[in-house]
Amino acid sequence: MRVFIAGIDGYLGWPLAQSLAAGGHEVSGIDAGLRRRWVTEMGSHSALPIVPIEERLEALAEASGTEPRVANGDLTEAGLLYQLFEELRPQVIVHLGQCPSAPYSMIDVEHATWVQQNNVIGTLRLLYAMRDVVPDAHLVKLGTMGEYGTPGIDIPEGFFEVEYRGRRDRLPFPRQAGSWYHWSKVHDSNNVMFACRIWGLRATDVMQGVVYGTRIDEMGDDPRRATRLDFDQAFGTAINRFCCQAVIGEPLTLFGGGTQRRGFLPLRDSVQCLTLAIENPPEPAEYRVFNQFEECYGIAELADKVVAAARELALSPSIVHIENPRDEAESHYYRPDHGKLLDLGYRPTHDMGSELRVMLADLLPHRSRIEEKGALLLPDIRWDGTRRPSRPLAEPAWTKTG
Amino acid sequence: MRVFIAGIDGYLGWPLAQSLAAGGHEVSGIDAGLRRRWVTEMGSHSALPIVPIEERLEALAEASGTEPRVANGDLTEAGLLYQLFEELRPQVIVHLGQCPSAPYSMIDVEHATWVQQNNVIGTLRLLYAMRDVVPDAHLVKLGTMGEYGTPGIDIPEGFFEVEYRGRRDRLPFPRQAGSWYHWSKVHDSNNVMFACRIWGLRATDVMQGVVYGTRIDEMGDDPRRATRLDFDQAFGTAINRFCCQAVIGEPLTLFGGGTQRRGFLPLRDSVQCLTLAIENPPEPAEYRVFNQFEECYGIAELADKVVAAARELALSPSIVHIENPRDEAESHYYRPDHGKLLDLGYRPTHDMGSELRVMLADLLPHRSRIEEKGALLLPDIRWDGTRRPSRPLAEPAWTKTG
Repeated sequence: MRVFIAGIDGYLGWPLAQSLAAGGHEVSGIDAGLRRRWVTEMGSHSALPIVPIEERLEALAEASGTEPRVANGDLTEAGLLYQLFEELRPQVIVHLGQCPSAPYSMIDVEHATWVQQNNVIGTLRLLYAMRDVVPDAHLVKLGTMGEYGTPGIDIPEGFFEVEYRGRRDRLPFPRQAGSWYHWSKVHDSNNVMFACRIWGLRATDVMQGVVYGTRIDEMGDDPRRATRLDFDQAFGTAINRFCCQAVIGEPLTLFGGGTQRRGFLPLRDSVQCLTLAIENPPEPAEYRVFNQFEECYGIAELADKVVAAARELALSPSIVHIENPRDEAESHYYRPDHGKLLDLGYRPTHDMGSELRVMLADLLPHRSRIEEKGALLLPDIRWDGTRRPSRPLAEPAWTKTG
Repeated sequence: MRVFIAGIDGYLGWPLAQSLAAGGHEVSGIDAGLRRRWVTEMGSHSALPIVPIEERLEALAEASGTEPRVANGDLTEAGLLYQLFEELRPQVIVHLGQCPSAPYSMIDVEHATWVQQNNVIGTLRLLYAMRDVVPDAHLVKLGTMGEYGTPGIDIPEGFFEVEYRGRRDRLPFPRQAGSWYHWSKVHDSNNVMFACRIWGLRATDVMQGVVYGTRIDEMGDDPRRATRLDFDQAFGTAINRFCCQAVIGEPLTLFGGGTQRRGFLPLRDSVQCLTLAIENPPEPAEYRVFNQFEECYGIAELADKVVAAARELALSPSIVHIENPRDEAESHYYRPDHGKLLDLGYRPTHDMGSELRVMLADLLPHRSRIEEKGALLLPDIRWDGTRRPSRPLAEPAWTKTG
């Protein structure tokens, strides 16, 4: 299939492009290089060295035998997607081209407005270009499990049948997101749902859990094919950050009690699931929602798993609890459904231990790159609007030696 | 109280300013003159002649004895609201400063993106300025009943207690808006709710029904104090448009079957309700939602009421059904709650007939202004993305002589 990836230079976009090309799909895309710029703005860099996008595409061309066509441009630019879709006639559009960071969106008013504007307007322009140029294409839009928040009831996949005062209806499941970034994803989900209703577009909205990992098999050992791995407070996610801390001998930092529960999945599973969505499109006018994760874990439990894997590589990290910079429930009910992708054939990678050992082994040769920016692992962007480093929590109950 | 009105030059903002000033409140505000520009862009003008904002404010100063301070500026402008709030220290901020038109947002991609960007970013900037300068102020934010759509169950005021798979929680009521404009209001409601949660701001989110009417008592007969009354397809709402059609002897146009049901309220009730919200603030960190309307009506039923009122003024309008340019259910369940404002003391104006006679009498002297732009009463902005005038529906069942 002709698959167009918005955000093809990103943490997910680049592995997905490689995997799809290896699977015989005709890959094209767009990227404005924003992820590289945001991480630079945070003062950081990828733990794994990455090459410029031109060299990445050369490597992909060598491996797949065809030159992927990738535009350097911004989704919010008027007219650009119309041109690209006219030329490329994609059958599938995978939309990963958004700012994915909660802390980045919480820095200040300029970052909050920029993230919401960028994410919402880029998606709206993409929907219009689809309608006018490739109305039969299938949109695979990356959302986040964070759109749902942590309600006190089970979380279905997008919609639920509800009874209220004696009447029943199937309604969108209420969203209770936890940052301006997460809300931008909710706004987008709503806009995509509406476009499917009024224009008959088809879309898969992926509520993705937190992704971790350094590789997929297709990358082999070609350093041009490596994906980025961020560890700064804004673009580094929980497990990735823990592994980087373990590698440089710093304690793994848990926000507050560490009892928050979230859905997680390794990078290879994210690519597998997105591919299943791509290869099994919905009907015209269908808007479907997939909850995409391997399993739910408590954050402290994940830190323990990283410690165990690190010990096998002769590392001995400890764990500390620090003030939670976020406004989030730490003890909460959490039971989201995730059956739809399993029904399509998703085979989850349940062996997190071996995945973590691969990650640590990939990161160890780059220890000095992480050490150089190690201070950026600790959060100081706070949800209350202030900016100061989270202090360690003193209570013995919070402290646990690895 | 010191009340700051964003959008003080608009259809609601201007009457509200006059009513609050007459009630002893200290009124200030901001307006960028956008409503005047949008209506000009649509090729139209207000049915009732209005004077420039400077003359309006002179009239208000004469009547109230104090000069209202009103900035000429845009909510999306960085830093502006910080300056204004520092200087004015408002205790209440009434946010009417948004583009309020569903058809305008559906014209094309540029209008869709402009409306969402303008509405969402203006509100976000307002929330940050409140947080940093007047965190104890009370935000009264204008939303719309259109955020809810037409679900098959009762519509509560913002939140509902729901049971699902044996567990219960109180959740935001799902929104199913019907245009990019309506979705921009949903995005805003979500952002305001989140700001209250993380920063302890207090807000009243008003899900308002469709407003109709030409006056409130405070205006008297000073033409400088008149509010605007739009009738073009984008900024004219149902009853206002019907009255303008009746005045120029054109048939009242119902979209499709005219069986859609909506909540309506006269302009004087909107001002009364907003004043009740202003004078009865919520607690800090409280985000409350009011459904604000007098009663629900079927659109065809309203057209009949306009015909009856018009006959008393020796007019004899007919009614035609035309193709519905929108994507909306025409036969649907509709039972929204609206008890909270009644509990605060709202006394609804139930006598729609006399309200309509006042409107028609106000409009009759300006018949030629409406005739001049009469063609703009008929819709050609369609939800499917095409643009062509709605044709009359031929079926005898749809045609009814007034």
